[in-house]
Formats: sequence, structure tokens, C-alpha cells
Amino acid sequence: MKFVLLSGGGGGARFARGLQDALEPGELTVVGNVGDDVEVLGMHVSPDLDSLLYALAGLLDEERGWGRAGETWNALSAAGAWGGEDWFRLGDLDLGLHLVRTRALREGRALSEVTAELAEQAGLPTRILPATDDRLRTHLVTPAGTFPFQEWFVGRAHRDEVDDVVYEGAEAASAAPGVLEALRETTAILLAPSNPYLSLGPILAVRAIREALASRHVRCVAVSPLVGGRAVTGPLDRMLLRMAGGTTPAHVVSCHEGLLDALVIDETDAPAEAPVELVVASTLMRDREAARRLAERVLEAACA
Amino acid sequence: MKFVLLSGGGGGARFARGLQDALEPGELTVVGNVGDDVEVLGMHVSPDLDSLLYALAGLLDEERGWGRAGETWNALSAAGAWGGEDWFRLGDLDLGLHLVRTRALREGRALSEVTAELAEQAGLPTRILPATDDRLRTHLVTPAGTFPFQEWFVGRAHRDEVDDVVYEGAEAASAAPGVLEALRETTAILLAPSNPYLSLGPILAVRAIREALASRHVRCVAVSPLVGGRAVTGPLDRMLLRMAGGTTPAHVVSCHEGLLDALVIDETDAPAEAPVELVVASTLMRDREAARRLAERVLEAACA
Repeated sequence: MKFVLLSGGGGGARFARGLQDALEPGELTVVGNVGDDVEVLGMHVSPDLDSLLYALAGLLDEERGWGRAGETWNALSAAGAWGGEDWFRLGDLDLGLHLVRTRALREGRALSEVTAELAEQAGLPTRILPATDDRLRTHLVTPAGTFPFQEWFVGRAHRDEVDDVVYEGAEAASAAPGVLEALRETTAILLAPSNPYLSLGPILAVRAIREALASRHVRCVAVSPLVGGRAVTGPLDRMLLRMAGGTTPAHVVSCHEGLLDALVIDETDAPAEAPVELVVASTLMRDREAARRLAERVLEAACA
Repeated sequence: MKFVLLSGGGGGARFARGLQDALEPGELTVVGNVGDDVEVLGMHVSPDLDSLLYALAGLLDEERGWGRAGETWNALSAAGAWGGEDWFRLGDLDLGLHLVRTRALREGRALSEVTAELAEQAGLPTRILPATDDRLRTHLVTPAGTFPFQEWFVGRAHRDEVDDVVYEGAEAASAAPGVLEALRETTAILLAPSNPYLSLGPILAVRAIREALASRHVRCVAVSPLVGGRAVTGPLDRMLLRMAGGTTPAHVVSCHEGLLDALVIDETDAPAEAPVELVVASTLMRDREAARRLAERVLEAACA
């Protein structure tokens, strides 16, 4: 059995760990979003790949939901005091990763290569692949103007309503080595409970990945990121309301038209109607065990 | 009154602070060694300029003698765990500086420009100038081979005897903007109690700086880095013994032939003979006050 999960950070990363716990070593490949990637203080930061790496390696700060447990913030505070940018929160432990990766990228290595090495260094039983090694950046079109993802999300605290999402570079981007092979060999395709516009959208904007899903011969099962019609964290419910017209399971499905066979929704969102099979589960991942139970339920639905 | 100090890190940086304490704001310009500069994890590190900056800004870890007080080491330990280089000790607070400077250098700014901005950010009453903005790197010729400075000093814990010191790039290097002007306008030139081969040598290897000293119209006074014929820290006594033939004040003077008018030596090294005027003082800078007293004694000798 092999499974491919498309995922962002946050809830997606928690779900990825649930899957890793539920599967045998080597059975899971996670394709991560790179639309959030950003240059900070001259370093290449891949927030979603990092969240996946940290969650799968057991290094994630569970309470904060991002970054590393036991983190300190001295380098960034010193950089700020010397006049450097400090709007993007980077912890000291986290910086160690960014330094190693940035250096490897500067030496001409591909993001997928570096990501594989980091996962190996952490002894992960799961493969993490960036959606693409090419430059792909998410931009938000808002009434206040168009902003790069992190400028809107962190810099402006995602306060602007979103009219549209643009994936710069996606048209020209190739899937990273390994992604299409993994999608060809998978038992089923899973979409994490990640933001359809901000986390899954950039992955699916890579034409070859989108086409692989559209022409799939296996089931594709998504986990709804909504609980009771609300986002667990982040701006998704506001985005769905404005861009899809509502926050029901059907509105989530509409974000992935033609790509889903089933949607796993939370008990608080049932009963509901949607143009795909709906599977009801408890989707709030309060802890590692809850994430594993959800993963098992999703795998069951995927193999149905 | 204006004074130019040529200095490395360590004891040189402590002495620089003593001078800053003894002088009025704006009277001191420190020309720092860049022969120790090194690329670590893709960052440009200027250890001696940093020691000067930290010492003059009151940020230095007085006990360790380098780096910042209250330092933590999380980024480097994380980098090492991810397979990155961790042989060169970089603290988290320290990293903040390297990130800001490296980014500015990558944007095409000169080291002297960035150094001036950092000093301004710290509100220093003293100007810090790198000897040169050009690439200048100290290499050690030893029986075990030739090594870049930091590889020998940190990586091999300076265990190899030194037969020769080579300043790569010095022939082609120009003095950084401001250095020659400062030397023209100075009341006297001072050489810090720094290693003549490793700290002052690279500065004086810049032809224009060496010529400015050789053709000076003001006094040039050095402070001997030896106390009782021994280096306070580091490999200087072994180097002097092997390369100059001894560790008396005359051997120190021989390192700077034709460039000195007076050498300030420690009480434990007196009486002594040398081809320049010798001034006896207590040169061990146990604390900030001792550094200030030494600075006052040196200024007195310089203005004699």
C-alpha cells in the first residue's frame, strides 16, 4: 500500500503525522505546498515543508501549531536591533534549518533534494516532496491591492478580504522529481485538511499535478478543513464565504471540482449534501491519537 | 585630537574600549583586521570587526572574551543536527548580526558601509573601519600544510607550528574608504596589543596602509601583546619563538620594522632593550578600568 497526501502546514501537518502513525514505514509520501515560501534575511524559508518536517519528526511546537518546541528567539531579536527585518518570526532552532537549506540551494541543489536529505537526517519513515522545485508564489488579490502571501498573512495579519488568489509561476512549473511517479503508484490520493486556496491550490496549480489528479484511476479523498462551518485557525471561512459563496461541505468540494471522490467532514457539519460521497468523522485533531484515528478513518474511506 | 587604532579582536577589542572610555566621542577610529573573515553556513563572518563592535557597544561576553554576553547556541546546534557545518561557534544573538551583514553584502554593499551602519545602529562614539573592502584572507603555512586562518585556528585548534603567514589578496587590496584619510588626520597612530602576525599583519599587508605608516609624520605607538614573555591568550608566544627567534620586546618590535616609534610593554617584561622607545605600564586589562588606565598611558606616550 502506498499513499500520497497533498498538504499545507498547520492542520495538514498534524494530519500527516496521523497518517504516518497509522501506516507502515515507507507507505506515505507527502507533497507539500511551496506557495508560501519566502526570503527572509537572505534565507529561503519554506514554512509548509518545515511544518511537515517538524510534525513528522516530532519536533513541532504542538501548542503554537508551527515552529519548533523549546524555541528561542535571540537571533531575530538581535537582527532587528541591528536594523534587519524582523517581521517574519523565525526561531533560533528553526534558523538552523533555514541556514542549512539556504546554503544547499545556493550551491545549486534542488529544493526536493534538500528536503529529502533533511527528512533522511531526521530519520523520517515518510517521504516529503515539494510540489515543485520551480519558483511558485501565492499572491492575494484584495481590495487593498495584491500582496505576496507572507506579506498579507503575516505582515498584514490577513486582515484584507480576498477576491482572488494567483499562483505566480505555476503555469511554467514542473512537478518536483518523484511527485508524478508517486501519484502513479499510489493506492489512493489524499488531500489534507488544509486551506483549499492557500495550501492545496498552489500544489494543484502545477499543471502536471492537477492533470494527474483529474485523470486518476484511484480514489481521491479530501478531509474538510472546516469544523462546524468554521476554520479551526486562519482565514479560510471568510475566504470561502466571499469566494465560494458559503462554508458548507459542498462549498469545500467546489474548490476542487472534478478532483474529489469523497470528502471527510466533521460531525458538526453533518448532515450535508454534496456532489461527492461524504464521510462523517471527528476531524478536530486535539492530540496525536485523535490525528491517528482520523487518519485511519480517511484511509478506510480511501480504500473503500 | 584624533587617534587611529589598528586592531584585531580579543585584547585589541578590550584596548579599543579602554581608548573609547579615555577619549571624547568622535576622537577614535579603529581599523580592524579582516584576514580572519570566514564564510560559515553561507554567512559572511568578520570575527574581529564583531569583537570590536561588541566590545565598544558593551555587548561583549567579558569572560569568554569573544561573542555576546547572554548568548545561546540553538541555531548552530540545530544546523549541526540537520547535517550543516557546526565547527565554527556562532551564537544566536551573534547570528542576528551575521544575517543582517550578509544580506547587505549580497545586495552589493561594501563591508565598510555595513560596518558603519552597524556602529551607528549601536550608537557608538567610535568609528570602526575594516582595513579593506576587498577580499583579504590570512593563511598559515605549517609543517602539516597551508590552512586558511579559521581552519587552523578553530578547526585544528592552532596546534600546528607556523612557519609563515600569507595574506591572500593583500597585494591587490585597497584600503577601505576612510582609512587613509583617518591616518592622514590622526594625532598619533596606535597598534593594539594584538597578534602581530595574525591581527596586525593582515592590516599592514594592505600596501597603502603600510606605506601610510612608513611615511607617517606622527608617532606610532604599539602596545606589546606579551605579558612576561607569554601571550595572554592564543598562540603568539609559540609563533614569535619560531618565526622571530624569541619573545622579548625587541622581537615584538622586529615584527613591525620601521613602523614603530615606541612600544608599551608590561612591567613583567621590563627592563628590556629594543631599537625603539620602550614605555613600561601594566598592560594586563583585568577589567574595563584597567583598559582605560592602559589607554591613558598609551595616549600619553603617543602625544609625548
